[in-house]
Parts: sequence; structure tokens; C-alpha cells
Amino acid sequence: MIKTDILIIGAGPTGLFTVFEAGLLKLKTHLIDALPQPGGQCSEIYPKKPIYDIPAYPEILAGDLVDRLMEQIKPFEPGFTLGERAETLDKQEDGSFIVTTNKGTKHHAPVVVIAGGLGSFEPRKPLIANIGDYEDKGISYIIKDPEVYRNKKVVIAGGGDSALDWAIYLADVASEVALVHRRNEFRGALDSVEKASELAKLGKIKLFTEAQITELHGKNDLSGVVITYNDKEKDAEYLEVDNFIPLFGLSPKLGPIGSWGLEIEKNAIKVNNAKDYQTNIPGVFAIGDVNTYEGKLKLILSGFHEAAVMCQYAYKIINPDKRFVMKYTTVGGVEGFDGSKKEAKKEVVQSIV
Amino acid sequence: MIKTDILIIGAGPTGLFTVFEAGLLKLKTHLIDALPQPGGQCSEIYPKKPIYDIPAYPEILAGDLVDRLMEQIKPFEPGFTLGERAETLDKQEDGSFIVTTNKGTKHHAPVVVIAGGLGSFEPRKPLIANIGDYEDKGISYIIKDPEVYRNKKVVIAGGGDSALDWAIYLADVASEVALVHRRNEFRGALDSVEKASELAKLGKIKLFTEAQITELHGKNDLSGVVITYNDKEKDAEYLEVDNFIPLFGLSPKLGPIGSWGLEIEKNAIKVNNAKDYQTNIPGVFAIGDVNTYEGKLKLILSGFHEAAVMCQYAYKIINPDKRFVMKYTTVGGVEGFDGSKKEAKKEVVQSIV
Repeated sequence: MIKTDILIIGAGPTGLFTVFEAGLLKLKTHLIDALPQPGGQCSEIYPKKPIYDIPAYPEILAGDLVDRLMEQIKPFEPGFTLGERAETLDKQEDGSFIVTTNKGTKHHAPVVVIAGGLGSFEPRKPLIANIGDYEDKGISYIIKDPEVYRNKKVVIAGGGDSALDWAIYLADVASEVALVHRRNEFRGALDSVEKASELAKLGKIKLFTEAQITELHGKNDLSGVVITYNDKEKDAEYLEVDNFIPLFGLSPKLGPIGSWGLEIEKNAIKVNNAKDYQTNIPGVFAIGDVNTYEGKLKLILSGFHEAAVMCQYAYKIINPDKRFVMKYTTVGGVEGFDGSKKEAKKEVVQSIV
Repeated sequence: MIKTDILIIGAGPTGLFTVFEAGLLKLKTHLIDALPQPGGQCSEIYPKKPIYDIPAYPEILAGDLVDRLMEQIKPFEPGFTLGERAETLDKQEDGSFIVTTNKGTKHHAPVVVIAGGLGSFEPRKPLIANIGDYEDKGISYIIKDPEVYRNKKVVIAGGGDSALDWAIYLADVASEVALVHRRNEFRGALDSVEKASELAKLGKIKLFTEAQITELHGKNDLSGVVITYNDKEKDAEYLEVDNFIPLFGLSPKLGPIGSWGLEIEKNAIKVNNAKDYQTNIPGVFAIGDVNTYEGKLKLILSGFHEAAVMCQYAYKIINPDKRFVMKYTTVGGVEGFDGSKKEAKKEVVQSIV
């Protein structure tokens, strides 16, 4: 059982910054995220895209924003349960909560904050009847560790940035890389398209366009796929493979959180924005893009503010008898749980002559 | 008459970021601030102090924060009325407002937002009976342009960073610099104290400690001061000077805003935080440290959020018949009023072979 003060569901920018605000109040945090790395959409969907509306950053790449936040929260030593989806929320007699993931990991905390963005990102799956039989037996929808594919025969399906970038990356890792796309045109960053084109010409990526994978074969693990062309005149092909990676994008789903008894409006969680961003379940807060209220703006900077406010109220739940006096970091500095201390240069008092 | 869409009172971080959020909505902005430069406290009081709680900045000097914000808002070409204090607010028949400064500059806008921080910073003045007679006739409480003191005989009073730093700076500009402080010990950054000490030893700063200025003389303009020692045994001295600069710090005062008919609570302006950060006067908003509501945190990051929300409602007041569809900067980029355009690299759609 993982124990913490504030359990944060969702490790996007808002969830990450919550670690910092909680840390200033000496509260410990642990994050759960369905994606294999922190940063949410910023890391998974658009790490190389510039964001222009983070205050005091005229321009910052989404991936760099995540890196800076990770650096800022490091002194507060957050725990992470990554690649697992928060599945159930169970209120305990003492008012605390146990949150269990789809892989059975249990987390116990007096306060839960949902910073789940648009929800958990679920991969879009191709419609092949027996696809469920080979999941984790040769088929993955997200690449967690590319080394898994070393010297394997891999087929990737998809026509966007993910499919292009992973085909390029795995061309140097896997023994064979095939790329299957139902159209002739790929949609991606210019340099990705050019690089993939070059590797295709060199034969390092085997290309199947205007085609899709229609059958999966293999006794226990996946051992081959059938590729069918849009043009019915062309014969289908059988391709021997160890791995099939469909990269058709991720689609956000509120998912299991939707059945936790929270008040939901427009696919988002209703909160009390006049006060503390608490949901209808006392002790459960929701901040960032996952919440809704009158005039809600789905901006990263709003998630940051909501995190700061929410932590103050979480403090009162966790320490009902203490009174916290907020100190500006400019004055009080930042004391990490790792023993680090940042503080402003002290002024001296001394005579000049 | 200066005309704009949103008139911003206060050019601290919150006021500055309002320019950006308004600009994204194609609204023009103009700022009024009593201080001679933008940045509020961050520029005037602690430009060299590190701040640790700006999201995604593990550490940033207050002065650098202002510089980054100025860079971010540049494309939206804000107007500035600096060194003047907003004095009166007059509601017009059409619901718009005219704001007049203490120097008579008039500003006309349909929406006014007070981002006044702790209020306007008023200098603490020494208690000398006829000091008012010499204000702007040799006496200034804030140094706007140090060149004014070139080849002048200057006496500075005070024992903190400002007094030390300006004495050091003016030692190379003025013909004579005297520094008067009522104690023997100065309070400031170590390097400032050391540098001032060195200049005092070289005779470039003439030091009077455990003393204060008690009399001011001069027919029309200031021509001399009397310095009296704490130790009554020591004779008072007459010093011929062109300028006297008392630097006893700035004390924030809500000031004239307090009499505009706004609902005030704990020296701050009450706003509707559940919705739009509007005050009891429709069309007048208050954001950042100057406002108050249940659970208010006086954090810069909260001012940023309040600015973003407030601008959305200002848009509706200014454009009652239009509907604004918010576009993420990641998708829509940023189009400046200066013709500049920032946008994410477009993806291409093309075949690989």
C-alpha cells in the first residue's frame, strides 16, 4: 500500500505543479498516470509544440515545460505510479481514500485530487476481431521501452507523427520495420516525413500504403499479420512479425473516474470554484482541464492557480488543528524534503566605516 | 484623451500579463502606474530577489520575471502612463469610464481593471516641517533619472539597500554625495555594504551616521540642509546641497482608489471570484494582490489566472454581440498588433515515396 498526504491522479502540468504547492505546505504527494511518463498530453501528444501563453514564457516547447516543472518539484520527492490507470476510489471509515489501479496497485491518502486533464488517454484500436487475444502478446498501443523491439520484426500501423517517428526510431533497433497506412499521404512534421522517406528508399522501412492490417495470426503470441490493399485487385500479403504496434492516436476518456459518484457536467467534474475546487465528495478535489464551473478556461495557467488554492484546503483537512501561515518563497525560500534549501541571499547589518 | 479597450491600473506582473490575455482576444490595453517603470514591487522593491513559486521557473529573479513578461506582451503594443497615480474614476453615460491621474492625464475605456497590488507605493517622508516647500525643487523621494544629479551636490538619507545603491551609483555622477543615516549600521546586500564602505574610505561618499537631517534651507529651491547628531554633545552641521533624496522606503497605500465607491474589505477590493473578478461597480474588475475573496492567495500565479478569466468577461462587455471562440496558442499561435505572428510549425501532408 502506497501512503501519501495528497494523492494526485494525473501527472500533467497541473498535477505536477500540485506537488510543489503541497510541498511548500510540507505535504507529501504521489501521482498516478495511465501514460508511461509524466507530463500528460504535453509529453505524449505534443512535446515539440511551442506554447505561448504560459506566463513569463514568450515561447516554450510543451516537453520543456514538463522538464522545468519536474525540476521545480524535485526537492519534494513525489512518488509516481506510471502506466497504470486509477480504477476505483474507496472511502474509508476515517474519511480517507484507497485508490486502486487497473494493475491492482493500492494508494492510501486523506486527500485525493483529480488532475486528469481530458481524462485518461486510451489508444484508438483498429477493428480486428481477435485483437484482444494478442494484447501484451505482441501487440502494444503505446511504446514504453523501445528496447523491447531490439532485433524483432515489427509492423507499425498509422499515418501521423507517432507512426512516422517510431518507424524512424525502430529502423535502427528492430531487425525489420514495416509501416502500414491506409492512405498514400502521411501527416507529420516536415523533417519526420523526409526522414521516413529516406529510410524507405534505403529499404530500412518497408512501406505498405493504401493498405491496412486485417488479420492477426499466432498460436499464443502474435506471429504474423495479413495486409489488405484498398485496391481489391491487389492481392493481400502475409507478413511474418513479432510485434504489431497500431499508432492511431489516443482518445481521452474520463474512464473509470466517471463512475466514482462525482457530479459530472459536459464530461468534466463539477467543482466549487468559489472556494476550494472540491467536488461533491468531501476530500476529493478536481483541478485543471478535468474540472468545470461557470467561466472555466481550460488553460494550463488556470490549473496552476487551482492547484495552489486546493492545497491550502487540503492542508486544513490533513491538519485540522494547525494553522498554516503562508510565507512568500521570496522571503522564506524553499525547503525540499530531500534536505535541499533554496533561499534568497540574506541581507547583512553592519557599519560601513 | 488616451483611449483603449481595457484600462489597467497597476503595471506589476498581473497588470502586465493582462495585456497578453487581452491581446489574444484582440483587445487593446493601456497601463497606469505611479512608479516610473513597469514591474511594480518586482522592479522597485526586490528586482534582485529570487522567486521560487512561478510555475515552471524553479528560480527567477523578480526583475527577470518582469523582463520576460515585457517580452511576452510586446506584440500587443500596450500604452503606458508611468509615474502618475490614478486619481479619479468617472462613469460616463454610456457605461464607459474616464480615469484621470494626479497629473491630469485622462484615459477613456469601456472596461477598467485594477491590478494595483498592495496599492500605490507612496514614499515614507522624513518629518521635517517645511519639506513640502522643496518637493520637486531639490527634494525627490524616488530617483527617476539619475542624470538629473550630474555634477550636483547630493545628500541621501536612509540606511537600506536603496540608500546604499543610489549613493554608490551617484558617487560617479554627482559632484558630491553625502549619505546620512540615523544608526551606525546599514542593512543591505553584502556587496552593497562593502562597496559603499570602500567609496566612503576613498572619500567619494561622505558619511554621516547616527545623525539625521533636521532642517531644510533655500530661498526658492533647496540650497542646504542641517545635519543633527543623535549625540547632543556633537555640533550640528550645515551642508550646502542641490538635492536631498530621502530613501526611507515605500509604503503601499490603497490611496485614491479607496474612495471610488468600491466595496473594500481588509484594505483590499472585494470581487466575485466565482465568476469574473468584477467589483461592485459593473465594468470595473480587480485582480492580483489588490482583490479579496474567501481563500484568496496573494500569489503572482493567482493574478495570472484572474487576468485570463477577467479578460473573457471584458470581451463580452466590449463586444456584446460577438461570440469569442477560444483557440489554444498551441494551435492558433499568437498574432501581435505589431504585425508579428508566432505559430507552431505546420505539419505537412505528403506521400513518402
